[in-house]
Amino acid sequence: METIKNYIEANKQRFLDELFDILRFPSVSADPQFKESVLKTADYIKARLIDAGADKVEVCPTAGYPIVYGEKIIDPALPTVVVYGHYDVQPADPLELWHTPPFEPTVKITEEHPEGAIYARGACDDKGQMYMHVKAFELMMKTNTLPCNVKFMIEGEEEVGSSNLATFVKANKERLKGDVVLISDTSMIANDVPSIECGLRGLAYMEVELVGPNRDLHSGVYGGAVANPATILAKMIASLHDENNHITIPGFYDKVIELSDAERAEMAKQPFSEAAYKKDLNIDEVWGEKGYSTIERTSIRPTLEVNGIWSGYIGEGAKTVLPSKANAKISMRLVPGQNSDEISDLFKAHFEKIAPSYVKVKVTAHHGGEPVVTPTDSIPFKAASKAMEESFGKTPIPTRGGGSIPIVALFEKELGLKSVLMGFGLDSDALHSPNEKYGLFNYYKGIETIPLFFKHFAAMSK
Amino acid sequence: METIKNYIEANKQRFLDELFDILRFPSVSADPQFKESVLKTADYIKARLIDAGADKVEVCPTAGYPIVYGEKIIDPALPTVVVYGHYDVQPADPLELWHTPPFEPTVKITEEHPEGAIYARGACDDKGQMYMHVKAFELMMKTNTLPCNVKFMIEGEEEVGSSNLATFVKANKERLKGDVVLISDTSMIANDVPSIECGLRGLAYMEVELVGPNRDLHSGVYGGAVANPATILAKMIASLHDENNHITIPGFYDKVIELSDAERAEMAKQPFSEAAYKKDLNIDEVWGEKGYSTIERTSIRPTLEVNGIWSGYIGEGAKTVLPSKANAKISMRLVPGQNSDEISDLFKAHFEKIAPSYVKVKVTAHHGGEPVVTPTDSIPFKAASKAMEESFGKTPIPTRGGGSIPIVALFEKELGLKSVLMGFGLDSDALHSPNEKYGLFNYYKGIETIPLFFKHFAAMSK
Repeated sequence: METIKNYIEANKQRFLDELFDILRFPSVSADPQFKESVLKTADYIKARLIDAGADKVEVCPTAGYPIVYGEKIIDPALPTVVVYGHYDVQPADPLELWHTPPFEPTVKITEEHPEGAIYARGACDDKGQMYMHVKAFELMMKTNTLPCNVKFMIEGEEEVGSSNLATFVKANKERLKGDVVLISDTSMIANDVPSIECGLRGLAYMEVELVGPNRDLHSGVYGGAVANPATILAKMIASLHDENNHITIPGFYDKVIELSDAERAEMAKQPFSEAAYKKDLNIDEVWGEKGYSTIERTSIRPTLEVNGIWSGYIGEGAKTVLPSKANAKISMRLVPGQNSDEISDLFKAHFEKIAPSYVKVKVTAHHGGEPVVTPTDSIPFKAASKAMEESFGKTPIPTRGGGSIPIVALFEKELGLKSVLMGFGLDSDALHSPNEKYGLFNYYKGIETIPLFFKHFAAMSK
Repeated sequence: METIKNYIEANKQRFLDELFDILRFPSVSADPQFKESVLKTADYIKARLIDAGADKVEVCPTAGYPIVYGEKIIDPALPTVVVYGHYDVQPADPLELWHTPPFEPTVKITEEHPEGAIYARGACDDKGQMYMHVKAFELMMKTNTLPCNVKFMIEGEEEVGSSNLATFVKANKERLKGDVVLISDTSMIANDVPSIECGLRGLAYMEVELVGPNRDLHSGVYGGAVANPATILAKMIASLHDENNHITIPGFYDKVIELSDAERAEMAKQPFSEAAYKKDLNIDEVWGEKGYSTIERTSIRPTLEVNGIWSGYIGEGAKTVLPSKANAKISMRLVPGQNSDEISDLFKAHFEKIAPSYVKVKVTAHHGGEPVVTPTDSIPFKAASKAMEESFGKTPIPTRGGGSIPIVALFEKELGLKSVLMGFGLDSDALHSPNEKYGLFNYYKGIETIPLFFKHFAAMSK
């Protein structure tokens, strides 16, 4: 422990400078105008892995953005930890809502982060969290305390659905052989309430388009006699939740694995302040499925959310148009038991069915992901729990996360590997929002904890 | 009549060239980037009025875009026709749907227009129709057949609510003294079925904004526990029409003046093909308030229409955001009896009332306009009817239009003048849509008919 802390202390400025370098690349995978930056980020990660002591470091091409691979095999008889992360980031828009430039990392001291937090797109999701692993590896190499093998798989398309990762994984099963996948891309309850995500929701993401008249119409000449696709879409979306905020798609909940009363009681022990939650978001009331708490609504229950909707004239001023089309992006978070493709099919069938004959409807599915659970009595979970207990001085609480990391199910299916989600972010880090941040405390605590995970995992695996 | 036709024949190419000049100015009043073009259009109109023989021609400044004034007083004892039109146009977007450039007028021969039609933004609304009056005036001046006084009032802000016209009218009551306002900004049933609009719907135009959480949220972390403003907005919009497509705002229909069964029967005699209507729009079914025909739904019944709606991520690809805000533009067409400010207030009160406490709601009103009716036994209507009967060889049908020209009520209120809406456009002219057009037949027929209106109006007013 002392060794770890001393090494971090001696190198903390460089650890931060390198992370800043990475954050300055606008590696936005969703937008082709940033292609060069995405590729440069991969090269930078490769160089730092080589510096840290990794072997066979390679920027592996795919049909999309490359995957950075590296390894250190100290003894084939020892277990192997496969570290997954991603170097791409979400788009930064709406830009006008950022207080500091999204790709110029800035440290600010705040009440929540008295030691400072880094403000930048990707600070937490996932560059800050991913890079902790590169630095932890460097630390173990330089202090000669690496207790088992390690392999790195850092991709560049997580934010756009990791569509080429499956191909890479399937084509590299030998190379990626291991015993567990270690991922830091989730959050803890608080800096003084460590927790480990032992479940993630799945995702099904749909695009819908309604077409009414074959052109935008003058709303005076035609208004009242032609169905307005925007209104039709509003009615269809409105029908997707009943008065109890229960999703109305037939069959949607059929395969949901319900938690037992005992499990729900365990979950309810988590510290949670609804008042602070509402204050943070500046809302008067929380909302959600009747009969469930806020924590349950965001973890063990599936959801349906409108992520975007647009139709007609949305510029400045008034335009009296009856729009030809109306579009929406609608995604669903899934829980264990539900399957992403099945849910996409149920949505499509239902949405097409409820569309009245006034419009033509088109429903397409983006990439989704399966829900996952990592049992708390498994070695990976216990090793992570012990590591955090040591570095935080407190036993971490097992939690179920609301978000999705679709590739976790992929790793289990193709590589037979469970993942442990040992994340050091906070819910307030504003992932996917303007002014994303990551605490310096969290960054360094992660670098301190990861070697402890390796130590315990290697020991428990004997 | 011969005189008129001969003059048109001799000058028809120049009439077209000058209109093309005007159409080339992108005089989009809604968008400040086109300011220079709007002002140049006013100057061009001024020059052509002077060429045509008008006196006291002036580009009158306002707090916004100027109003072009001109007159010819041949004898103060004679009646005065006040000609109103506008030189500004709607925005052209979405640009990618235009087959020819919106501001490069192109003549195309089509089945509907065997003599050709001009395709350009403003071809019909209102440059083509407005300029017919300038050419008709030139014709009467050059053939020495102007039978009464005429005044021109051509504004540049009709598409954005004519907010400065009221100020101008109130400040120029003496200058604008007259006996009737003549306007060509409406449509006929068909080129072989002339009609005159004797009623217009009013307009109330609202902007609504719902704010939920104080920032865009990650839809995995927060989805299911925080009300989504896009979904709330969808539910609110969905509730504005009941299952009979009747608007649910309390008090909305209270003051609507219903037509008698006899009037409805008269109206039903209008030639109308629902099959052709649906084919033109490529829709399977018409829609609307139960108990009313398509013609009635677009003329004597009020409506509520979503003109635009937007929330969340609307770019390419997937972004898993739970949006902070949701916005919509909603306008209502009003019928005689209803008042624009009252309806705006009713809408605001209702919308604020039905908004759940999960969101903060803001409702603002744009400029509106009152509904109007011009009686068919009035001199202005009879003069227009006789003029069209002569030029078309058929008695025009009195119709009620679906659109709004808010300033018509303004003229009645401030100047005590009724307006006659003698328009030569067609519903298929795609006003406010891409590929707006105006038939050459219609343009020249208007120039031929307007002097006949002057002749009959002067004679009937003795």
